[in-house]
Amino acid sequence: MPATALKCRECKAEYPLEAHFVCSNCFGPLEVAYDFSALGADPAQTRRRIQAGPQNIWRYSDFLPLQGGSPGASTRGASRSGLPAGCTPLIRADRLAAELGLKEVWVKNDAANPTHSFKDRVVSVATHRARELGFDTLACASTGNLANAVAAQASAFGMRSYVFIPSDLEEQKILATGVYGTNVVAVKGNYDDVNRLCTELSGERAGWAFVNVNMRPYYAEGSKTLAYEISEQLGFTTPDRIVSPIASGSLFTKIAKGFEEWLELGIATGSLPKMNGAQAAGCSPVATAYANGHDVCRPVKPDTIAKSLAIGNPADGPYALELARRSGGGIDMVTDDEIREGIGLLASTTGVFTETAGGVTTAVLKKLAERGEIDPEERVVIVITGEGLKTLDAVRDTFTTHTIEPSFDAFEAEFAVAGSH
Amino acid sequence: MPATALKCRECKAEYPLEAHFVCSNCFGPLEVAYDFSALGADPAQTRRRIQAGPQNIWRYSDFLPLQGGSPGASTRGASRSGLPAGCTPLIRADRLAAELGLKEVWVKNDAANPTHSFKDRVVSVATHRARELGFDTLACASTGNLANAVAAQASAFGMRSYVFIPSDLEEQKILATGVYGTNVVAVKGNYDDVNRLCTELSGERAGWAFVNVNMRPYYAEGSKTLAYEISEQLGFTTPDRIVSPIASGSLFTKIAKGFEEWLELGIATGSLPKMNGAQAAGCSPVATAYANGHDVCRPVKPDTIAKSLAIGNPADGPYALELARRSGGGIDMVTDDEIREGIGLLASTTGVFTETAGGVTTAVLKKLAERGEIDPEERVVIVITGEGLKTLDAVRDTFTTHTIEPSFDAFEAEFAVAGSH
Repeated sequence: MPATALKCRECKAEYPLEAHFVCSNCFGPLEVAYDFSALGADPAQTRRRIQAGPQNIWRYSDFLPLQGGSPGASTRGASRSGLPAGCTPLIRADRLAAELGLKEVWVKNDAANPTHSFKDRVVSVATHRARELGFDTLACASTGNLANAVAAQASAFGMRSYVFIPSDLEEQKILATGVYGTNVVAVKGNYDDVNRLCTELSGERAGWAFVNVNMRPYYAEGSKTLAYEISEQLGFTTPDRIVSPIASGSLFTKIAKGFEEWLELGIATGSLPKMNGAQAAGCSPVATAYANGHDVCRPVKPDTIAKSLAIGNPADGPYALELARRSGGGIDMVTDDEIREGIGLLASTTGVFTETAGGVTTAVLKKLAERGEIDPEERVVIVITGEGLKTLDAVRDTFTTHTIEPSFDAFEAEFAVAGSH
Repeated sequence: MPATALKCRECKAEYPLEAHFVCSNCFGPLEVAYDFSALGADPAQTRRRIQAGPQNIWRYSDFLPLQGGSPGASTRGASRSGLPAGCTPLIRADRLAAELGLKEVWVKNDAANPTHSFKDRVVSVATHRARELGFDTLACASTGNLANAVAAQASAFGMRSYVFIPSDLEEQKILATGVYGTNVVAVKGNYDDVNRLCTELSGERAGWAFVNVNMRPYYAEGSKTLAYEISEQLGFTTPDRIVSPIASGSLFTKIAKGFEEWLELGIATGSLPKMNGAQAAGCSPVATAYANGHDVCRPVKPDTIAKSLAIGNPADGPYALELARRSGGGIDMVTDDEIREGIGLLASTTGVFTETAGGVTTAVLKKLAERGEIDPEERVVIVITGEGLKTLDAVRDTFTTHTIEPSFDAFEAEFAVAGSH
């Protein structure tokens, strides 16, 4: 495989490709390091290999830390089992763009994954690596979407699973997790409490692969596929700007890493997009640090309807800050009311119904447009990470249902009064 | 385009390709008639054209009643706008097969459409035809999924829409419709009452395209794409058996029509699959007629948790009966408890979370396997038509959530007592 080692993001110490996530020297986070030289010098050939691949993230196996991912290997991931993630639609959103006075806006709808969030990407990669390393049990600390993805992927493989969630999670996400026959552990606390417990447990349960704790370096790489797909769907170019939500900061930074890898290898043309991060005002440690010009985040206690973004102590916060500044983007926050409006704006102009996190993203796009920060000529992609059916409370009472008797006259009376035609 | 006329299914009278759905001679239903001769005599060439098409149903434009669908036309559907439906995963379900003593079972997961049901296919076709015919408003009579699809598609195009639903519909489906800014009309009655009202309204509202009333011949053709996809995903062959739900009977019969077209044109090899229909015991007019050896269905008052199948007076019931018999399949019914078990069986063995309709389909597969009606060597495809997030009530209280304090000791205590590890 193209991955060569786990490498400390801070002190650059290297470790074997096992279930490690933190540097024993300096406690920095570990990342996967690669040697892509086996791809060869001709990007056109690499593009053709990608295009001939399966219609899921395994078409990008050459860039992922899994066995069988190296060029020429017979499996090339086409035969990987489990739930196929990725290859979600990139939709041109002309009506949304017009509404905001922009010219070219695209919606990357990652709700179109097996369990309807981008988490299927990261869980796919972590699960395959966990199986290569011999684990028989999957686990995770989740704000909801990850719980769905881990439970489903474990079912598909017949693995045991434990998912740890904050006990105040939306019922939709709990039901859509428990149905798979996983062990649902509701922890009385917020996500950061759940995460601390899982970090402790991962030291005690040798046979458990916590996808976002001891498997985190592999897990995080899955998010790069979002950048690869956007690039491929735009004809192997890069967009001018990405607007993406920030929870831990992992997705946001890995999208940039995906673009940077392809730019460096010549697979994509263009340059790194301006990277705009989106947070909810009720949990905005990264946006607040950005506004204050800080390099690190001060942890907060989350209080927002965007529960899937409710991480008060974001692991990759500093890297997200650095990226937003370096790329010429930024990080903004929006209120719960703006989030609800964002959900409605996206749904009514594109037909895409997103969960609260996507409302955050759409509301930040609107804010950037209103502030005049986006050149109308720019090609902007907003990353919609999850599905509206999972956070239905956010849209309750936002519209009128006309209840009538089953007769033509009743219909006429209702709509004559309402004046809707 | 390849479509030549609307043709009465009973008396074969022909009509122009407009917004008609019933024969003025004999009151039979109208269907689209085609002339596929422009495709040429070489099926291999047609297959290559399909494979080079977009990753959505428009790759099958040559077989759909839309302009620009004829071979060689420059648009070929690749540039069609709206929400892209289709190209949903066909997942090999070895764990489900093993559980049922079968060898080869596949799950066609049509919950992976934009609004998470197969209705996006039919609405896509009906909407494009409606726009070609100059309509500015979409409407439908829906048991829920269709409402989602129509409201979303209308938003994507900026069209006005009215969706008519039974007032006792699941809240999930109402919220996931209203968010798009459509006119939600909740009719006090069941689907058959809603349908009657819409049929009356379609005569009064000249500018409205009721996708499943006056646009029904075009709408119904969208379901053929499910057969095309299954065939293409199996290497342009046909499976031995299909298990599909039956509501109006349209999906069930059009899947067969899709296979028959491709077999006749030589695009697919094999023969018509045995067609097994699945109904809920609480609304089983077609299964009951099948069991009693009748050629027509006696209307019933629906009472089942499978609301998306709750059509008591199925328009295509007689054709579904004829097909089940002719193909060597059958039509079965399952109880609400079996439906809930079916949802759990599919989720826990494949990672696919389906709504109640998919529970019906899975439970019927189980019943057929238990009765020994399926040869273990058969290749069976079950058609999962919708998403579990839309009918969450069906899985509430089907599993245990372990609520604990955020500590290692609390976890140990809970799971030592529960004995789950």
